[in-house]
Amino acid sequence: MRLGVCPQPFYRGGFAAALDAIAGFGLAGLELPVDAHSPFVDLQALLDGGAEPLLRQLAQRGLALSAVSIHQEGQLLLGPHHADTDGIFAGTPAQKVAYATQRLCLAADVAQRLGVATVVGFVGCEDYTRFFPWPATDGWERMLPVFRERMLPVLDHFARRGVVFAQEPHPKQIVYNTETARESIALLDGHPAWGFNLDPANLLLAGVDPVVFVAEVGDRIRHVHGKDGELVAHHAARSGLLAHGPWDRRDRGFRFRVPGWGDVPWRRLITELVLAGYDGWIAIEHEDPTFGPRDGIQKAIDVLRPLLPNEPRQARWW
Amino acid sequence: MRLGVCPQPFYRGGFAAALDAIAGFGLAGLELPVDAHSPFVDLQALLDGGAEPLLRQLAQRGLALSAVSIHQEGQLLLGPHHADTDGIFAGTPAQKVAYATQRLCLAADVAQRLGVATVVGFVGCEDYTRFFPWPATDGWERMLPVFRERMLPVLDHFARRGVVFAQEPHPKQIVYNTETARESIALLDGHPAWGFNLDPANLLLAGVDPVVFVAEVGDRIRHVHGKDGELVAHHAARSGLLAHGPWDRRDRGFRFRVPGWGDVPWRRLITELVLAGYDGWIAIEHEDPTFGPRDGIQKAIDVLRPLLPNEPRQARWW
Amino acid sequence: MRLGVCPQPFYRGGFAAALDAIAGFGLAGLELPVDAHSPFVDLQALLDGGAEPLLRQLAQRGLALSAVSIHQEGQLLLGPHHADTDGIFAGTPAQKVAYATQRLCLAADVAQRLGVATVVGFVGCEDYTRFFPWPATDGWERMLPVFRERMLPVLDHFARRGVVFAQEPHPKQIVYNTETARESIALLDGHPAWGFNLDPANLLLAGVDPVVFVAEVGDRIRHVHGKDGELVAHHAARSGLLAHGPWDRRDRGFRFRVPGWGDVPWRRLITELVLAGYDGWIAIEHEDPTFGPRDGIQKAIDVLRPLLPNEPRQARWW
Amino acid sequence: MRLGVCPQPFYRGGFAAALDAIAGFGLAGLELPVDAHSPFVDLQALLDGGAEPLLRQLAQRGLALSAVSIHQEGQLLLGPHHADTDGIFAGTPAQKVAYATQRLCLAADVAQRLGVATVVGFVGCEDYTRFFPWPATDGWERMLPVFRERMLPVLDHFARRGVVFAQEPHPKQIVYNTETARESIALLDGHPAWGFNLDPANLLLAGVDPVVFVAEVGDRIRHVHGKDGELVAHHAARSGLLAHGPWDRRDRGFRFRVPGWGDVPWRRLITELVLAGYDGWIAIEHEDPTFGPRDGIQKAIDVLRPLLPNEPRQARWW
Amino acid sequence: MRLGVCPQPFYRGGFAAALDAIAGFGLAGLELPVDAHSPFVDLQALLDGGAEPLLRQLAQRGLALSAVSIHQEGQLLLGPHHADTDGIFAGTPAQKVAYATQRLCLAADVAQRLGVATVVGFVGCEDYTRFFPWPATDGWERMLPVFRERMLPVLDHFARRGVVFAQEPHPKQIVYNTETARESIALLDGHPAWGFNLDPANLLLAGVDPVVFVAEVGDRIRHVHGKDGELVAHHAARSGLLAHGPWDRRDRGFRFRVPGWGDVPWRRLITELVLAGYDGWIAIEHEDPTFGPRDGIQKAIDVLRPLLPNEPRQARWW
Amino acid sequence: MRLGVCPQPFYRGGFAAALDAIAGFGLAGLELPVDAHSPFVDLQALLDGGAEPLLRQLAQRGLALSAVSIHQEGQLLLGPHHADTDGIFAGTPAQKVAYATQRLCLAADVAQRLGVATVVGFVGCEDYTRFFPWPATDGWERMLPVFRERMLPVLDHFARRGVVFAQEPHPKQIVYNTETARESIALLDGHPAWGFNLDPANLLLAGVDPVVFVAEVGDRIRHVHGKDGELVAHHAARSGLLAHGPWDRRDRGFRFRVPGWGDVPWRRLITELVLAGYDGWIAIEHEDPTFGPRDGIQKAIDVLRPLLPNEPRQARWW
Repeated sequence: MRLGVCPQPFYRGGFAAALDAIAGFGLAGLELPVDAHSPFVDLQALLDGGAEPLLRQLAQRGLALSAVSIHQEGQLLLGPHHADTDGIFAGTPAQKVAYATQRLCLAADVAQRLGVATVVGFVGCEDYTRFFPWPATDGWERMLPVFRERMLPVLDHFARRGVVFAQEPHPKQIVYNTETARESIALLDGHPAWGFNLDPANLLLAGVDPVVFVAEVGDRIRHVHGKDGELVAHHAARSGLLAHGPWDRRDRGFRFRVPGWGDVPWRRLITELVLAGYDGWIAIEHEDPTFGPRDGIQKAIDVLRPLLPNEPRQARWW
Repeated sequence: MRLGVCPQPFYRGGFAAALDAIAGFGLAGLELPVDAHSPFVDLQALLDGGAEPLLRQLAQRGLALSAVSIHQEGQLLLGPHHADTDGIFAGTPAQKVAYATQRLCLAADVAQRLGVATVVGFVGCEDYTRFFPWPATDGWERMLPVFRERMLPVLDHFARRGVVFAQEPHPKQIVYNTETARESIALLDGHPAWGFNLDPANLLLAGVDPVVFVAEVGDRIRHVHGKDGELVAHHAARSGLLAHGPWDRRDRGFRFRVPGWGDVPWRRLITELVLAGYDGWIAIEHEDPTFGPRDGIQKAIDVLRPLLPNEPRQARWW
Repeated sequence: MRLGVCPQPFYRGGFAAALDAIAGFGLAGLELPVDAHSPFVDLQALLDGGAEPLLRQLAQRGLALSAVSIHQEGQLLLGPHHADTDGIFAGTPAQKVAYATQRLCLAADVAQRLGVATVVGFVGCEDYTRFFPWPATDGWERMLPVFRERMLPVLDHFARRGVVFAQEPHPKQIVYNTETARESIALLDGHPAWGFNLDPANLLLAGVDPVVFVAEVGDRIRHVHGKDGELVAHHAARSGLLAHGPWDRRDRGFRFRVPGWGDVPWRRLITELVLAGYDGWIAIEHEDPTFGPRDGIQKAIDVLRPLLPNEPRQARWW
Repeated sequence: MRLGVCPQPFYRGGFAAALDAIAGFGLAGLELPVDAHSPFVDLQALLDGGAEPLLRQLAQRGLALSAVSIHQEGQLLLGPHHADTDGIFAGTPAQKVAYATQRLCLAADVAQRLGVATVVGFVGCEDYTRFFPWPATDGWERMLPVFRERMLPVLDHFARRGVVFAQEPHPKQIVYNTETARESIALLDGHPAWGFNLDPANLLLAGVDPVVFVAEVGDRIRHVHGKDGELVAHHAARSGLLAHGPWDRRDRGFRFRVPGWGDVPWRRLITELVLAGYDGWIAIEHEDPTFGPRDGIQKAIDVLRPLLPNEPRQARWW
Repeated sequence: MRLGVCPQPFYRGGFAAALDAIAGFGLAGLELPVDAHSPFVDLQALLDGGAEPLLRQLAQRGLALSAVSIHQEGQLLLGPHHADTDGIFAGTPAQKVAYATQRLCLAADVAQRLGVATVVGFVGCEDYTRFFPWPATDGWERMLPVFRERMLPVLDHFARRGVVFAQEPHPKQIVYNTETARESIALLDGHPAWGFNLDPANLLLAGVDPVVFVAEVGDRIRHVHGKDGELVAHHAARSGLLAHGPWDRRDRGFRFRVPGWGDVPWRRLITELVLAGYDGWIAIEHEDPTFGPRDGIQKAIDVLRPLLPNEPRQARWW
Repeated sequence: MRLGVCPQPFYRGGFAAALDAIAGFGLAGLELPVDAHSPFVDLQALLDGGAEPLLRQLAQRGLALSAVSIHQEGQLLLGPHHADTDGIFAGTPAQKVAYATQRLCLAADVAQRLGVATVVGFVGCEDYTRFFPWPATDGWERMLPVFRERMLPVLDHFARRGVVFAQEPHPKQIVYNTETARESIALLDGHPAWGFNLDPANLLLAGVDPVVFVAEVGDRIRHVHGKDGELVAHHAARSGLLAHGPWDRRDRGFRFRVPGWGDVPWRRLITELVLAGYDGWIAIEHEDPTFGPRDGIQKAIDVLRPLLPNEPRQARWW
């Protein structure tokens, strides 16, 4: 497996400085965000000749792209379509759906142009609270055909580009735990362009074990986030798993952490990824409100690097 | 404390039969649902002379009312106001809010008429997923002034009737854990007509410890539900705390149970209620998909009855 | 579900006294051992006219038979065939196999004659230590075709008698945990006369969760033993799960217990049996070395009786 | 085993009323405090002819004495001898030692007179904080010869009376955990009049497992207290095991409870007592600050009675 | 945060050698003991011109002082004043109090002279066993005014010197857990010269979570000890938290350890220190009876160094 | 302690290459297998002049031998003697016993010649399932005199050579947990040539704590294996501790791992070895089916090296 990074902690210094920093940490590459808000690249410009210079910038530093990412705009495919997503794209629900569809397809185009096999991102969920069957008992089930209807054409486009869309299980997504991941594969008829970006911290937020996610749908995992989540032991009894409010609230019951500082069982997770045949990227995603940007990335590397396998398994020798 | 019941398991046999059955279990009373869908009573009819015959029916069997309840219509006060609540009342969001306001106030009126000190129920939440601060970082906070604005007039009406509204912390409510309960008290300026209906199973669904809820806001608890919740040990790793779909799905990661069959630490909870000075009702709410209606209630009684205190604490004698 | 008992604690007083005692405990029936060593019945005599008087003895006391049992002689089908089983039947391995085959079939005959649907018992294992793949890596696998070859004719005989053979997962059996139970069903082509007698304490000895056994192969469970097992907390660290020597050794790391005094999660187990549609017997098996015979049975009843369901589940009413 | 009670909860109503109440609970007897502060009996008066009337009072109600107890005055044998014990007996350290010696011996006399085999109580500890070897590294060890010197004559007196002194392991005693219990036996040369009154809740306060106490020194247990202790789960992280201040402080990290409401593993404890051959009394000691006197005793009985053995173990029958 | 050390493991080699060794480990500084028994410095000599040469010795090696420490003599302020403290200073209780007062004030003087902001130490406790409210129910409370009376003048002296006294919560101190820490702040009217030296291992000995200590009184933490404590898993059931006797006894239930080898959750602790705004020293205190002096310090460094933050937190960038 | 390795992962490349690789990892030595199947050495050839060249090969690389090992042939001493051991040596049981006796003695001879103090290995067990006392209640006990009779002459030979035989507790051995280890010492009259090769992973397979093994029989430990075992958290509930079948089966409930990737508490274990006075070798044994040969050894070194002590303990300095 190779160790990469999500470059958001370096947004403030410009793209070249970000690449320098990433190479300076000894990392092998990065996940490239192509949402319209990305300060680093412009999706359309990449398609209009910008891909090659970018690849040269990477090559000069010995870096590679682990994936192209599109979380914000992808969210609009299923919603929510109320005011909370106006900051991404303002419009009617139908306009938001159309925009998301278009941007997802462009992301596939740019991934192909950049020689990247995977687009990671979100597709959203109209109303995620429907997991709880009240007041409408069939709220969740009513959303499923809509998901199928909107997603299949997008995936067909991805297939034509030779790229896989790797949905990141996460709160407010139609896929947020192991059961909904399996459900999505069935709904999409096992479409070959449908995969997952395993972010184990997000799965903790649904109360599930990310290792079991790998055991059950590991053959669909196309990308992995090196992110951890901490159920804060001394606040959890009152604040709980579903703590609300700002990420840097001191007494939050749950917070995202860099790997090794939360509850993800990394040795078990990496072992199960090995057993599932995964040999791709782990991109460190630093959203830990307790560490500065460089501190967090360095600590993540310190924890993860010694755990990664460097050679294939062999038949029993004993 | 006194042991009562929520009468939904007896809906199919008519009100008189329900009362007979409740008395037959040796229970002391019941929580009376006054939503429009209630098969037992009509809210307006109770105000138009129906209260007294109902009280006589109860008295004949030695039963009392632990509370009046209004969950469905109360939900409309804050929402969600999309299609999922049309089954409760179809209309625009504004119409739904108006209807909820009116029905909540009528519930206070009927409680007063019936000599009941507490109305338990829901007030809803426009979008409960906003606990997670993405895509809008301030989604939750934007809902809070609306809650205050709509709730205060209702509470003033309650205060005029000498009745307390006891919000039941629950998913899809503006109050769903200990932190939001404290937040609500502050938002409502500590309004004396604002209290809580402690349903410990609902709190488990937020990952919090119901005992801590009592320790922190116990002086606002006006009613307690005898309901349990089970994080199903052999399914939780894959299905999680936020399991979706029908309650009777066999491999669900979480299900409601009758007391003693789930994870609520009843001895700790009752001890903390004693320490908080609570000496009111525990109304068994049987929503356990694994037991028939009578089995569930009997098992709940078997578990809870020996745990209830029957005399006041005394000063140290040793 | 109905509560019965395995009658070994009453062996010393004769059959009639045993039946009186069982009825005196308010139990509904018993499991009838038909091994040659049984002091209560003679298998051949039952087939030669003894069945009807026995059924009358039961009927006079309102008792029924939960199953016919044959553990000792069944063990000889697969072994071990060395000296340890000479006390059951002395002979060559081939003679032991032939004897076991004959006795198992006679047990089916007598079950049919007694109107009992299930024969519970053992079929043994030539060398149970082969679960550990050393010194022969394929030791376990080599035993499987033999099991199939010997068991299928027996099961065909059972099928002709309308009786199911319920193998009790247990150490020294070809089925001792959930995985081997599934393996056995596949090896026997899902033979309809093949089922299981769930003894949850035995499964603890393999380190597995009996609730998962029910979740996975619950539709094959034909009988249940009310027995518990205790990993003795203060001795386990040194004596372990595989403690050796006499059952009444004081510092044993594991001992069998009556229900409620060990580690079996009875509420979870009974819930999962309900979900699997099981509505048969739980026969208390008292092999607890810390309680006298009557004490143990009474305590088992005290624990189990309040947990059993008395009516079917119903569709959701809330 | 037989179930008795420590009568302090009944102090306020007089001795006859206390005995009536105890018999009314169906208990078999009581532990009789003979400290000078006891409102029920006067030690000297019992020796001067008061024993027989008392035994008649008991016999009329079918009650027996489980033990004579002397906790307060016994404490003075080793101390502390500063102001904290002036309420028991004011004097110089030497006078306090002499008083304790005399009163302990009189307790043996009265036990003999009453036909009671056991005196339970304390012998104190000059400075219990010396368990921690700072500032004096040998503080604890320096106290041991003093204990031996003062205790042996008392025990010789007990032996002459045919009575055993059962020290109750407890904070502020020279015996407070399993290690100090073994140490005491060795220091006293295994004196036959030296035994223990097992109060499992006290042992929790030293962080030890009372079941291990039984496993290691069970043959010296002469009396058992039915008392529980609760490490209060939601306060322990801040208040701890060594919580200070009044017992009824609401946020205390540790509190005494009636059996079944704390952390004592009663089934394991009673099993180990059986294995140790203990067949004596369990005297419920109700010092639970959350229950009234009758509530607490009734709940203790509800928990303990079904757990007690009623017949001896037998050799293996299976 | 900066990593320092308590120099006791180097006492045998002289001060210069100790400083060389500390610098050789790459540590940034040390805590300087000024008790009369210190083999390194003489308190009075430091005030009489010795401070500057000492500072030069440090500067030559790039070392700094994390704090001045005075544990032995500070203990005499509150006691115990019996023989156990005669080794520190022999005298009447009043003389011991006077001596402690004088030495504490001199420690403040020397800290000012050395440019050190913090004096860490003990102030003792007359009788620490009074946490348990028996035989005197108000024993603890009676000690509190004495603490206030003796401590306030000392703190006023500290304030005049611009130095904070950081009490180390520990057994046999008036502050030994989170509750008594809060109590002390209130008793001292929140005196600005009153702070804490957080030694997480000491807090384990009271059964409390050191992370909660930081969460509650983190703004008063002025110094931190890098020390761990191990509740020895295989001895705790019999020896307990309050194990007595020599530190190197092999079967002790609790022992001090170097960081990472005990039960202190270092990642949680450092995270909470960050959230509390602590950016000072962690001084490794090696009192681990299982490692030699250099082994223990090296292992402590290996564990702690990678965990320390090296840059400030930043506002959310994602 | 010194870090070595079991060389099986290097079998495929020849002995010289194996030694180069071992030295390349910075390890201090290796355990030398002398079974007839060993591709590296021939036992008889070593005795016929081959020892000195081998010692030179080691010396050239700065390597030493931690032990000589003989697992396969030793197994034949007690069995099983059926077909499963024919691959080691085909013959009658008596012939297998004779062969094992001869080869064990030759191993002692070669150890003496190589200057190695310890031979590690197996002595087998006729039928390991006899730990469970059914169908023969005394099955285990009947094997013990045979063990004594066969082992004592072998140990006398070892004693004459000045070498200790270190039995490795393991499934299918007469010694497999702490209790059987103590039993073996007693059976062999505490023979000075009888010791143990502690492989903590094997002990996990019996459900015991390897730390307790050290605490109880640590003075007999002559060699330690650096091997770990993982009770696979997400499969254990169904597959259990006694999982069967191939080691690389993906859903196995238990698998061997390299140190740090399983359940062995290495810090506790090394601490207890220190307290037991053990200062010998830890030989990494890599049988982890999830890592390639070099990956596994490197990760084992990364985990173990920082934990080993490098200097003796010292008397208390604080």
